[in-house]
Amino acid sequence: MRTIRWINSKVVTIDQNQLPEETRYLELETYKDVADAINSMKIRGAPLIGAAAAYGLALVAYHSKAKSKHELINELQGAAEVLRRTRPTAINLFWAIDRMNQKASTFAGNLPEIRSLIVAEAQKIADEDAEANHAIGQFGSALLENGDVVLTHCNAGALATVDYGTALGVVRHAWETGKDISVIATETRPKLQGARLTVYELKGEGIPVTLITDNMVGYIMSQHLVSKVIVGADRIVKDAVINKIGTYTIAVLARAHSIPFYVAAPKSTFDLKRSSSEIIIEERSKEEVSHIKSIRILSDDVNILNPAFDITPLEYVSAIICEEGLFRNGNLDKIYK
Amino acid sequence: MRTIRWINSKVVTIDQNQLPEETRYLELETYKDVADAINSMKIRGAPLIGAAAAYGLALVAYHSKAKSKHELINELQGAAEVLRRTRPTAINLFWAIDRMNQKASTFAGNLPEIRSLIVAEAQKIADEDAEANHAIGQFGSALLENGDVVLTHCNAGALATVDYGTALGVVRHAWETGKDISVIATETRPKLQGARLTVYELKGEGIPVTLITDNMVGYIMSQHLVSKVIVGADRIVKDAVINKIGTYTIAVLARAHSIPFYVAAPKSTFDLKRSSSEIIIEERSKEEVSHIKSIRILSDDVNILNPAFDITPLEYVSAIICEEGLFRNGNLDKIYK
Repeated sequence: MRTIRWINSKVVTIDQNQLPEETRYLELETYKDVADAINSMKIRGAPLIGAAAAYGLALVAYHSKAKSKHELINELQGAAEVLRRTRPTAINLFWAIDRMNQKASTFAGNLPEIRSLIVAEAQKIADEDAEANHAIGQFGSALLENGDVVLTHCNAGALATVDYGTALGVVRHAWETGKDISVIATETRPKLQGARLTVYELKGEGIPVTLITDNMVGYIMSQHLVSKVIVGADRIVKDAVINKIGTYTIAVLARAHSIPFYVAAPKSTFDLKRSSSEIIIEERSKEEVSHIKSIRILSDDVNILNPAFDITPLEYVSAIICEEGLFRNGNLDKIYK
Repeated sequence: MRTIRWINSKVVTIDQNQLPEETRYLELETYKDVADAINSMKIRGAPLIGAAAAYGLALVAYHSKAKSKHELINELQGAAEVLRRTRPTAINLFWAIDRMNQKASTFAGNLPEIRSLIVAEAQKIADEDAEANHAIGQFGSALLENGDVVLTHCNAGALATVDYGTALGVVRHAWETGKDISVIATETRPKLQGARLTVYELKGEGIPVTLITDNMVGYIMSQHLVSKVIVGADRIVKDAVINKIGTYTIAVLARAHSIPFYVAAPKSTFDLKRSSSEIIIEERSKEEVSHIKSIRILSDDVNILNPAFDITPLEYVSAIICEEGLFRNGNLDKIYK
């Protein structure tokens, strides 16, 4: 299941706010369409956001009427600024934009060449993400055994990436290679990505999945119903993993119950020059909490916090699974194949 | 705010499933009406369920056409059996029913006397609960200081009791005696008692309250935004506190962040002959998770767990606040005034 594609000079993806009731495809024609879709979380998931931003710049290049390379680069940089402002926390967005801009500004060819190069680079970013996820699946599934019950949070699946998924890529690979495993998915308030997207993805492949509300995690662990935790990441810094709000709560609980806590993410999610204190945790609108599917669940004028992410110090992380292998026990200096 | 009353030979209470949008009063005329209201959580909160069950038996006695004391006692016992089957976990239900039956079966008077005695005993149970909560408020608020931010879960307020509340009784008493405190309320999926009831109660009194989703607790604690936790209880056994699902998760997080974790509950919630392994944790319908306000949020045929309670070992509890004083550090042998 490829989540994002370049079709007939448009970017085609699924509106994730409508899943699972409706599979509504979006045809994005401009970088502004892409930025709006990222802002409103129709497109979400750190790796997918990165690929989408790259495709947004590809739309600029492909449809550009620029008369010079200089003019095109200016257009790309303007679009990049808009895309950068969509969401502050996931690093893949900035990584993909920087890579695209770098490619454009250092390329020596003529204008038609550079335009097709930009489109090709976006395709390459997308293809590499899909490949990275398959490699993550392979390295990660070696950690799983028959009978494992894997708890996952939010959606770090094919829908969060270009294809296959990070945390769910590990689950998928284990399942495809015949391991008898099952999944517990947290619903992941406020936007219910676990209930809506993870359950949908896993059911689509016949992988057994059970849904819980976020506050059941401690109890479920105390009853020995979870053997491993695998989550994705929006940014990995030198001292912590930044991921969907609720991840840190699960990490503390996993530690208290001696359950391995794994993070699965491609290298494009790593930002090892920064530490967690430098990262902006996006605060999203209170309507995400006060409304569910446009139904108001709260009286007006309630103070509400809505941080979209939290920070899990590396000492809680048993291993980070990336496309090159495993970083174990919070040590990012050595990789295990 | 008295949550339950005996008015014109009926039991009058608020339909808590309709709050906060609508304050709909229920006039319950038979014990079956009471049992249905408990089953469907129109009446909820361990102390309130106890008082409601007592009033249910009062309705039986008051409207009985029994010709003999023996016949009345049989009617009461039949009704008691139905009420007992409503919800298995909160002890106050069984405590109140046992107390009522004991009073009826050992009373030496005639039929009219016993009927009015039963009604009076239900009133007494309700009055005692309100008094206990005020005492809990007094003992508990001594633990709070200016500037405290109290995290609470679910609703252990006036709406969960006959009046004043247990955990929120502590908050209320501190506020009424001039302490500058504020509250963080977890929304408490699946039935959102925190978002719907706790926020409503506290806003009604002008006590500052901020709502979070359940999975934000760890992050909020890591950011030093919580100084104390106070929750209620559905049953306190010799090794643990049984309370709304999510309580144990919060207790583990409080421990990890060195934040005091307090439980506020009247003696009618104590069941010290039993240990946690003997207690049935009620599993409620999966529709409570898959629907919010009758809106389906999930595709069909999803496996869902919905335990209504969890078990917090006493070693996580800094103090239990009851109407007689404080039990500290999980020691139930000694009470501190």
